[in-house]
Amino acid sequence: MTAQILTIGDELLNGQIINTNASFIAEQLIAIGIAVKRILTVGDYESEIETALNESMREFDLTVITGGLGPTHDDVTRTAICNVFSAKLLKDESVLRHVTTLMKNRNITMSPEAEGQALVPEGATVLPNERGTAPGLLLEKNGKYVVVMPGVPYEMEAIMVNHVVPRFSGKSEIAIIQKTFRTTGISESTLARNMGNLDELLEGARLAFLPSPTGVRMRVTVTDPDKAVAERKLQAIESRIRSKAEEYIYGIDSDELEEVLGKMLTDRGMKLAVAESCTGGLIANRITNVSGSSAYFERGVVCYSNESKIGILHVNPATIEKSGAVSKETAIEMAEGIRKISNADIGVSTTGIAGPTGGSADKPVGLVWIGYADAHGSMAVNFHFGDDRLRVKERAAQAALELVRRKLLKID
Amino acid sequence: MTAQILTIGDELLNGQIINTNASFIAEQLIAIGIAVKRILTVGDYESEIETALNESMREFDLTVITGGLGPTHDDVTRTAICNVFSAKLLKDESVLRHVTTLMKNRNITMSPEAEGQALVPEGATVLPNERGTAPGLLLEKNGKYVVVMPGVPYEMEAIMVNHVVPRFSGKSEIAIIQKTFRTTGISESTLARNMGNLDELLEGARLAFLPSPTGVRMRVTVTDPDKAVAERKLQAIESRIRSKAEEYIYGIDSDELEEVLGKMLTDRGMKLAVAESCTGGLIANRITNVSGSSAYFERGVVCYSNESKIGILHVNPATIEKSGAVSKETAIEMAEGIRKISNADIGVSTTGIAGPTGGSADKPVGLVWIGYADAHGSMAVNFHFGDDRLRVKERAAQAALELVRRKLLKID
Repeated sequence: MTAQILTIGDELLNGQIINTNASFIAEQLIAIGIAVKRILTVGDYESEIETALNESMREFDLTVITGGLGPTHDDVTRTAICNVFSAKLLKDESVLRHVTTLMKNRNITMSPEAEGQALVPEGATVLPNERGTAPGLLLEKNGKYVVVMPGVPYEMEAIMVNHVVPRFSGKSEIAIIQKTFRTTGISESTLARNMGNLDELLEGARLAFLPSPTGVRMRVTVTDPDKAVAERKLQAIESRIRSKAEEYIYGIDSDELEEVLGKMLTDRGMKLAVAESCTGGLIANRITNVSGSSAYFERGVVCYSNESKIGILHVNPATIEKSGAVSKETAIEMAEGIRKISNADIGVSTTGIAGPTGGSADKPVGLVWIGYADAHGSMAVNFHFGDDRLRVKERAAQAALELVRRKLLKID
Repeated sequence: MTAQILTIGDELLNGQIINTNASFIAEQLIAIGIAVKRILTVGDYESEIETALNESMREFDLTVITGGLGPTHDDVTRTAICNVFSAKLLKDESVLRHVTTLMKNRNITMSPEAEGQALVPEGATVLPNERGTAPGLLLEKNGKYVVVMPGVPYEMEAIMVNHVVPRFSGKSEIAIIQKTFRTTGISESTLARNMGNLDELLEGARLAFLPSPTGVRMRVTVTDPDKAVAERKLQAIESRIRSKAEEYIYGIDSDELEEVLGKMLTDRGMKLAVAESCTGGLIANRITNVSGSSAYFERGVVCYSNESKIGILHVNPATIEKSGAVSKETAIEMAEGIRKISNADIGVSTTGIAGPTGGSADKPVGLVWIGYADAHGSMAVNFHFGDDRLRVKERAAQAALELVRRKLLKID
């Protein structure tokens, strides 16, 4: 089964928005064995959408469209669909009920624009949008399928995962399976070197290294007509990869480090508290992104000023005076302090120079100390995370979470 | 002048890589008045690239291609170009010298693959690649231009900025100028209603509503042969838009609310401190993303547990006992508490049920109280932010920052 993704919106054509929808959809389709052959973006013009859709339906089995489904005047996708399918718009009562309830829950007055979301092309199947007002749509003509979804990624992703993937999985004869190993604390080139001979490692499968500021993901793709064969191959590859890089792999596929760590803390019945200076709340924010984190996350303090380090965390003023706010000694006292005032099992801290200003020859921008304290004692390690403020924050937060993971697993 | 961007590579079609090149190129072209009409991605297949390029040259004045120029077997763009232009590959001595020097500087032995980078289609102008081996190319046929660049963003960006933009700026007879108004606290449909008659508002310009969880952006695009005329038009539209929605507009183009707020606090010489429960550090994280925030951000506390609300912020245990941790009273005491312990001018707090669990009929998931305290007194407001944990956090953080902005501007 072949597919084209058709993303609609002037904001994509003028570069205001990066097309993350296309890659999300492509990934989902690949996972169920549907090969994406083309990705096309056109603007918010009825005629261009129509032309593109007609052409796509001639060439491909499935066309997945996103964008141009909202309540405002520049959202013309629905009209274009109606033209291509010679369909009228009919009011769909289930969509109307959903929109009404949603607006009510959000304390928004129902408007004619919102009501318009319940207009659905005749013959289309509604793919419910649990996260917004514009429903997804599925249409079919001469064995060619068209899926239409709103362009808001958060809404589109739920429709894709909950309604599109289940409907199309099993329609393809080739199994394509993928697994991504998420690593941190090791560079792409070192990781690649550790993997050794790739032909021996992969035996025909594909491996991609996907670096990011917080770590390198390794994605393995195995293709085989027989799904069971593909799965056995992937298993063998996984054990070879793990034998070469186990300690750096914190998770699989979409696992976030804060989720993995949350599970470890829950299993051990332990509590964590954080004292952040240069990461400015990012660690606490990541930890609390995880549902259920209140069970193991006791509190966090963002102590930007020296007064707050002293006042809340009881860092000794003499330590800051002597070694500086960005130092091994201060990092350790911060970690010990947050552990003590919170009665948590583990205290972790960050103090560094996020930049772009504030650096010196001695303590350059990017220098970060991460402190750690538990029942057995305390320590601190330092890193150099470059000169970009947001990158320094991201990389320091990742390193702090990873330090806790390694301590819990007793990896040195 | 119209353009199509043609991005080439299987890694784009299978979702492994997000197409950031397309948005970068589009932004650069728009800025010199070239309208991007389509963005197309195809795989690493000679025939598909050929077909796409032929079609693009029929329809558009300029085709900008990236990808498939590297030294490996799957890079077939150059061959496709030769086919379309009926051109042979000739060795270019300047490229060969550049590649040789580059490899030497990087301590890499010269390989036949690297040498192949010096093969350039007959008649093509070389656009030097200062950052890598594969040169950019410029070709022309019957007044239609084709630019070819490598797919590595870092290399492509330099070629685009240093060689493509200078060659094409001034070639367009049309000025395209854009301005984006960033709003928060108002829904897309209400904002659209406030704008009233769009023909009167815009007088031929285009307006797009771009919703996100934290607000709606309105982008105005004005096109005119005369740049000065376009600018005057945009100014008139801006004043009409502001007369209808001024209080909701916190910024322009890429302004973030935390930046705008930071500037306001700096101008007033005021300090802010935050006490976060349900936002879990997100507010502090956003504030500290801004360079120089240490001047006005005193501290933040992430008080997830009741003990931390009582211990650090001195919230009265009886208040939590009587009204609950998620309540107007607790929100106010948190804001007052953080203001007091930090000596900041303004204290702001959040307490709510981020979900997905922990809700009740009385206090459903998504309920958030935001507290505020300054020298004149304290108050709290509540919101319902839906049932998705991350969205609740994002929207609550935005609402808290916006509350401070409105208080500083004395908007009710």
